[in-house]
Amino acid sequence: MGFKERRKSQEIELGGFKIGAQAPISVQSMTNTDTRDVAATVAQVQRLEKVGCEIVRVAVPDETAALSLAAIKSKISIPLIADIHFSHRLALIAVEQGVDGLRLNPGNIGSAVRVREVVAVCKERAIPIRIGVNGGSLDKELVAKYGYTPKALVESALEHVRLLEDENFTLIKISLKSSDVPATLEAYRQLAAKVDYPFHIGITEAGTKLRGAIKSAAGISLLLAEGLGDTMRVSLTAPPEDEIFVAFEILKSLGLRQRGIELISCPTCGRTEVQLIELAANVEKALAHIQEPLKIAVMGCVVNGPGEAKHADFGIAGGKGVGLVFRKGEVLKKLPESELLNALVAEVENYIATLTN
Amino acid sequence: MGFKERRKSQEIELGGFKIGAQAPISVQSMTNTDTRDVAATVAQVQRLEKVGCEIVRVAVPDETAALSLAAIKSKISIPLIADIHFSHRLALIAVEQGVDGLRLNPGNIGSAVRVREVVAVCKERAIPIRIGVNGGSLDKELVAKYGYTPKALVESALEHVRLLEDENFTLIKISLKSSDVPATLEAYRQLAAKVDYPFHIGITEAGTKLRGAIKSAAGISLLLAEGLGDTMRVSLTAPPEDEIFVAFEILKSLGLRQRGIELISCPTCGRTEVQLIELAANVEKALAHIQEPLKIAVMGCVVNGPGEAKHADFGIAGGKGVGLVFRKGEVLKKLPESELLNALVAEVENYIATLTN
Repeated sequence: MGFKERRKSQEIELGGFKIGAQAPISVQSMTNTDTRDVAATVAQVQRLEKVGCEIVRVAVPDETAALSLAAIKSKISIPLIADIHFSHRLALIAVEQGVDGLRLNPGNIGSAVRVREVVAVCKERAIPIRIGVNGGSLDKELVAKYGYTPKALVESALEHVRLLEDENFTLIKISLKSSDVPATLEAYRQLAAKVDYPFHIGITEAGTKLRGAIKSAAGISLLLAEGLGDTMRVSLTAPPEDEIFVAFEILKSLGLRQRGIELISCPTCGRTEVQLIELAANVEKALAHIQEPLKIAVMGCVVNGPGEAKHADFGIAGGKGVGLVFRKGEVLKKLPESELLNALVAEVENYIATLTN
Repeated sequence: MGFKERRKSQEIELGGFKIGAQAPISVQSMTNTDTRDVAATVAQVQRLEKVGCEIVRVAVPDETAALSLAAIKSKISIPLIADIHFSHRLALIAVEQGVDGLRLNPGNIGSAVRVREVVAVCKERAIPIRIGVNGGSLDKELVAKYGYTPKALVESALEHVRLLEDENFTLIKISLKSSDVPATLEAYRQLAAKVDYPFHIGITEAGTKLRGAIKSAAGISLLLAEGLGDTMRVSLTAPPEDEIFVAFEILKSLGLRQRGIELISCPTCGRTEVQLIELAANVEKALAHIQEPLKIAVMGCVVNGPGEAKHADFGIAGGKGVGLVFRKGEVLKKLPESELLNALVAEVENYIATLTN
């Protein structure tokens, strides 16, 4: 309802995982461990997998990091992307190590010969390359010509694209990131008119957890509502697991993906007679492990709560010491308020058990 | 850049504060204290004023609450709105007490005579009425006719509007809230084609602090990017001060308002050699009192940080024990990492002092 049709992008595959065209908009993150520390990196990727991360990227700053990739890859189950700056040598090692994708700007690795070498191995193994243009590190000539504008981001991306297309390589994905929301939106719009490669979207350097979540939700929602975006990373100055949580909450808000609970909870007001903030936070915590998409309501009013939240799969309403547990608007139980949380969790878990049996 | 032109709405005034037309998109919240507790309510409103709240609404569930409004109003400096359900009597008391606006659905107060009485006093004092339609409490007849659809929200609003227009009352503001983002967007689009009263926007029952911030940012950004919205409330199951913070972060992300710092901070990655998450959080805390709009960068890399963040007014970059303080990309100081935070705060405060002298 109400959004533009999704842009028709080419489909690419990262280790069998589809991106673009009709594939669901996927969620990725990047580790912040030292890639050379295989155990720490694997542990972080496994935590990311658990919260729903679908693709992971690791920094590859040197040869030791590059030579750790096979060991990391062997212990994780989602596609692995090597993030490489400036070095075609590290790219070649990464491919040899078996990564599923590269993030590499071909214009920054020195020469056409080097681009050719990297492209040759990527072609052979069908490994896509993401071109990642970043507002903060634009080429000086482009900035001189276009200023710090969306146009400069787009032209930079197109230069890198041409280097790959010159080698008949089209397993390409593109990102254009800026910390400015309107500029990012405008850049992707312009690029959409020029190429049909899938888009990796996000707002870069968005800030700390809450601030960054807000700015990312603003920017990514505007892109997705225009049909722009095939895979996304929320960039936060926060643990990468938080990036996955925020990404799914954005997609759920727009009705584009489902995962785990959607919490419908009253704003507090002078009418609220239950400790609603605490109760809602506890419900959220107690149901964080649920992966099944479920709407859960936490309402501050016994009279209107069940009716107002009749679209919720399960809910609770409290006030004046008495509480209700309800399902699709129908009251299941009347309980003391203190027992509400546990009763709700029991109902939800029973329900989940019936699904999996 | 890139957004639709703002919808041309009528301008109304709430105690001299303008809403609609060319007025800045204003930020409001609602107290969650017991309105009958004047001291607690005033204290909360004063905290809200301090963080930038521009309009405040209080629940008026009974006569004692209504009779507290003058006392509350006398101690606060932003417009006060009385939130009233079903009772024309409470509305009359609220107006008598000197509130600046009512939130009241005229179709729910019982009769045309009662509507006429309320309208008469509002007209006399030029007090606007917000019609607030909520997806959870739609009239059963409308739901039977249109289902739980955007159309039902719009038709409900139009019914209430007609009751006021029949009395030649047009100091109207309208909200159409649902906990569903695409449905909310569609509802406001439909209503925009029918009336030119200013819109109060928001996503209702959006959830706890982080979840609710994400869903609100998604929904409100989509509305604002289409030019829809004159004043907003972010509804969170969290303290109302948080609603104001989130509202301003949304407006700042879209470049529609400015207030306080905008934090540009690196996502962490395997290349980061400074405790970036903690440092960024500390910078945020240390500069929370700044109201002047300033871009502050917190970068994890001494080599690229100052350049990548040259659009920042002030910034720091750390790594390997050494840190830099910079301004618009130019390095001001080289320091041990441990001294970065204090040095940044000192630079910012010196700068603010030069502005106010």
